[in-house]
Amino acid sequence: MNIQQHVQEKAQAAKRASYKLSTLSTQIKNDALCGMAKSIEQHADLIQLENAKDLKAGKEKDLSAAMLDRLTLTEKRIADMAAGLREVAALPDPVGAIERMVRRPNGLQIGKMRVPIGVIGFIYESRPNVTADSTALCLKSGNAILLRGGSEAIHSNLCLARLLSDAAQTAGVPEGAVALIETTDRAAVTEMLHARGLVDLIIPRGGKGLIRTVVENSLIPVIKHYEGVCHVYVDDEADLDMAERIVFNAKVQRPGVCNAMETLLIHSDVADILIPGLFGQLTQAGVELRGCERTREIAPEIAEATEKDWRTEYLDLILSVKIVDSLEEAMAHINTYGSAHTDAIVTENYFTARRFVGGVDSSSVMVNASTRFSDGGEYGLGAEIGISTDKLHARGPMGLEELTTYKWVVYGEGQIRE
Amino acid sequence: MNIQQHVQEKAQAAKRASYKLSTLSTQIKNDALCGMAKSIEQHADLIQLENAKDLKAGKEKDLSAAMLDRLTLTEKRIADMAAGLREVAALPDPVGAIERMVRRPNGLQIGKMRVPIGVIGFIYESRPNVTADSTALCLKSGNAILLRGGSEAIHSNLCLARLLSDAAQTAGVPEGAVALIETTDRAAVTEMLHARGLVDLIIPRGGKGLIRTVVENSLIPVIKHYEGVCHVYVDDEADLDMAERIVFNAKVQRPGVCNAMETLLIHSDVADILIPGLFGQLTQAGVELRGCERTREIAPEIAEATEKDWRTEYLDLILSVKIVDSLEEAMAHINTYGSAHTDAIVTENYFTARRFVGGVDSSSVMVNASTRFSDGGEYGLGAEIGISTDKLHARGPMGLEELTTYKWVVYGEGQIRE
Repeated sequence: MNIQQHVQEKAQAAKRASYKLSTLSTQIKNDALCGMAKSIEQHADLIQLENAKDLKAGKEKDLSAAMLDRLTLTEKRIADMAAGLREVAALPDPVGAIERMVRRPNGLQIGKMRVPIGVIGFIYESRPNVTADSTALCLKSGNAILLRGGSEAIHSNLCLARLLSDAAQTAGVPEGAVALIETTDRAAVTEMLHARGLVDLIIPRGGKGLIRTVVENSLIPVIKHYEGVCHVYVDDEADLDMAERIVFNAKVQRPGVCNAMETLLIHSDVADILIPGLFGQLTQAGVELRGCERTREIAPEIAEATEKDWRTEYLDLILSVKIVDSLEEAMAHINTYGSAHTDAIVTENYFTARRFVGGVDSSSVMVNASTRFSDGGEYGLGAEIGISTDKLHARGPMGLEELTTYKWVVYGEGQIRE
Repeated sequence: MNIQQHVQEKAQAAKRASYKLSTLSTQIKNDALCGMAKSIEQHADLIQLENAKDLKAGKEKDLSAAMLDRLTLTEKRIADMAAGLREVAALPDPVGAIERMVRRPNGLQIGKMRVPIGVIGFIYESRPNVTADSTALCLKSGNAILLRGGSEAIHSNLCLARLLSDAAQTAGVPEGAVALIETTDRAAVTEMLHARGLVDLIIPRGGKGLIRTVVENSLIPVIKHYEGVCHVYVDDEADLDMAERIVFNAKVQRPGVCNAMETLLIHSDVADILIPGLFGQLTQAGVELRGCERTREIAPEIAEATEKDWRTEYLDLILSVKIVDSLEEAMAHINTYGSAHTDAIVTENYFTARRFVGGVDSSSVMVNASTRFSDGGEYGLGAEIGISTDKLHARGPMGLEELTTYKWVVYGEGQIRE
C-alpha cells in the first residue's frame, strides 16, 4: 500500500463529503446514527470474530491484562456502543443555529451561524468502542471523520468502521464521511498531520507519548487532552465536614481518571483541625499521602512531597498535600503547577469564592463541589469527544457544539459600501 | 543582547501579568486606555522624532514610496491612534460574562464564563500605528500582549510601546502586560513561536511570507489572516441592476484590501445580458478583465483567465470572470478556489439564497450585499485585531470577544459524585 496516497485519498473523499454533510438534514443524520446502531447489533458476531483476532495478537505481543480487557468487545460493550449511537441521535443538532443576529444601521442583518468544522482527524489508542462514539459525535455535528486507531485494535476498528460507514451511506450520508486509515504504519499518522487544506482539526486521544507526537508534528490545529493535575483548596472559612467529603470523593471515588484530585491545598489556619481525621480516612481507603514540610509537622508519618509531586498526575491512590497561608498562595500554586484542567475551592466566604473563580486559570473552576463532576455528561452536554486542556476554541468537556465553528451570515437588500 | 533570554523574560513577565489582568476591573482598563491616549498626544513630538529615524533608515534602504508612506506617523495619524484607544475604552468589556448558566438535576449551577486568553504574541509588519491598536484590544479583553514589530519601524515602535506601557502601569495595569521585543533579530520571532506555556496565542499580521514563516514554525496555536480570494456569484434570478452595483462596489471601491472581490461568477442564463454593460463600466473604472472561455465568447476583447487566476488575490484593479451553469457549480468553484474569506450571492430566490448560505464554507457568506462589508467595524464589533481565515476559535473579523476564551464555572453546595 502506498501510505501517502491512501491517506490523501481518504482525506480528499472526507473533504468532499464534508461540504454535503454541512447541509445534511437532521433527519438523515439521525437515521444514519440509528442505522449504525442497528447494524452493530446485527453484526455483533462478526465484530466479536474480528475482535478475537486482535485479542489473539495482543496475547502474542504480551499485552497486559488491563490492556487486553480494554481491547475486548463483550456483548455488553457492543450493546453499549449501539446505545451510545442512539443517545447521540437523540441530542439536539447544533448546526444552523444563529446567535445574536443584529440589524446594522444600513439595514444589513448580521449574525453568527453554527457550522461544522469540516474534517476531523481523530487519532486514538486502544479501546475500539471509541470508534463508534467519536463517529457518532462527528456525524451529528456535521463533520466528516478520518479515524486512525491503535494498531492493537486494527481488526476490530476495520470491522466497526466498515459497518458504520455502510450504514451511514444507506441512510443518505455522503460517501467518505466516515473513514478509517486502513494501515497500522506510523507514517500514516504523519500524513494525516500534514494534510493541510483537507483535515481541519486533529483530536488526539491517548497516552502522553501520542499527544506529544501529534502536537510536535502537526501542521493542522490540534485540540488535546493533556493531563489532569487537579486541585482542591480548603479555605480557612470552609465548612470542614463538607471539605472532608469533597476531598475524599475527589481522590477516592475513581482515582484513575483525569478529573480526580492529585494535590490538596489546605489553609494553615485549619490544617491542624482538618488533617488528622481526613488523613485517617484517606489512609484507610488506601491513599498514599505525600506532604510538604508543614504538613509533615502535623502528620510526620507521611512521606515528603518533592517538586516533582506538584506536577504529577498520579492517576492512582496517591495524594500530595501542601499547606498555604492564603488564597493568593493557593491560586499561585494552582496556576504554576496545575494543568488547567479542573480546580475546586471549599469555602463559605462569598468574596473568596469569587476571587478563586476569577483568578484560577483552568478550564473548569468549582466552588464547593468535587472535581469529579468535570465531565460532559455531568455538565449536560449529553456526550463528549474529550476534555480539552487547551485554551483556544474549546476548553473542558467537548460536546457537539464544541465540534462546530461559526460563519458570519449577512443578509442585505443590495447594500454597497460608500 | 541574549535574544533567548530577552524573549523569555518578556514572555514570563507577560504571563505573570496576565493572571492579574484577568481580574482587573473595567475601570482600571479604561483608565489605562485613556491614559495611553493622552500620553500619545502629549508626546507627539517625541514620537515623530523617533519615527524620523525609521524614515531616514527606510530611505537609505530604498523602501518604496508606498512603504515609506505607511511608515510615516503624521500628526493626524498620531491623533487617530489616540482616538482609537479612546474608542476601545468606550466598548463593553467582554470579560466575566456568563453564557447559558444551567442548573443540573443535582443542584450544581454550571455555565461558561468569558475569560481572557492570556498572553497574545502579536507579530506584525510595517505600520507602527498597529502597535497602539493591537495593544488597546488586548488590554481591554484582559490579555497581556507581547509585540514584535517590523524592523523598519523599530524606533517608532520602541517609543510607542514605552509610552503605552508606562501609561498603563500608571493606571494600575500590572508590569509586563504591554511589552515589545526590543530587537529586530529574526531569532526573536522563533523564540516567541516556541514559548509554549508562556504565550497562549500567536496572531501574525503582514505579508504572506511572514504568515507562512509563523505557521510553519510555531509550536503555539496561530490565528491568521491569510488571504482574501472573494467571490460574487450573480444568480440567474438576480436583480441585474443590483448585481451591477454590488459587483462594481466589491471590485472598485477599494481594490487593495482583503474583502474586495477577485473573481466574479455569472450564471450562464444572464451572462449575455449582464456582461456588456457591466464590463463597460468596469473597464471605464480601469479594471483589467480576465475571463473563462465562455466569458470571452461574449467579450472577446478581454484576456484569458488561467487556472492560476482563480486562486489569485490580486489586491488590484484586476478581475477574473467565470460563467457557470448552476448554483452548485458556483459553490464548488468557491469552495475549491476561494480562501474562505468572504463570498456573496446576488439573487431574488429565497431557496437559492439559503442553499448558498448553507453550502459555501467561508468565514463570511453574504446575500445581496457587497463583500466590502466584511469588516469588524461594519459588523458592529467596534474594532478588530484582524480577520481570521482559519476555522477554529475565531472566523472572520476578530473583535474583543474573539480575543477571549471561556472557562466552565461550577457552583455547588457540597455535591460529591456517587
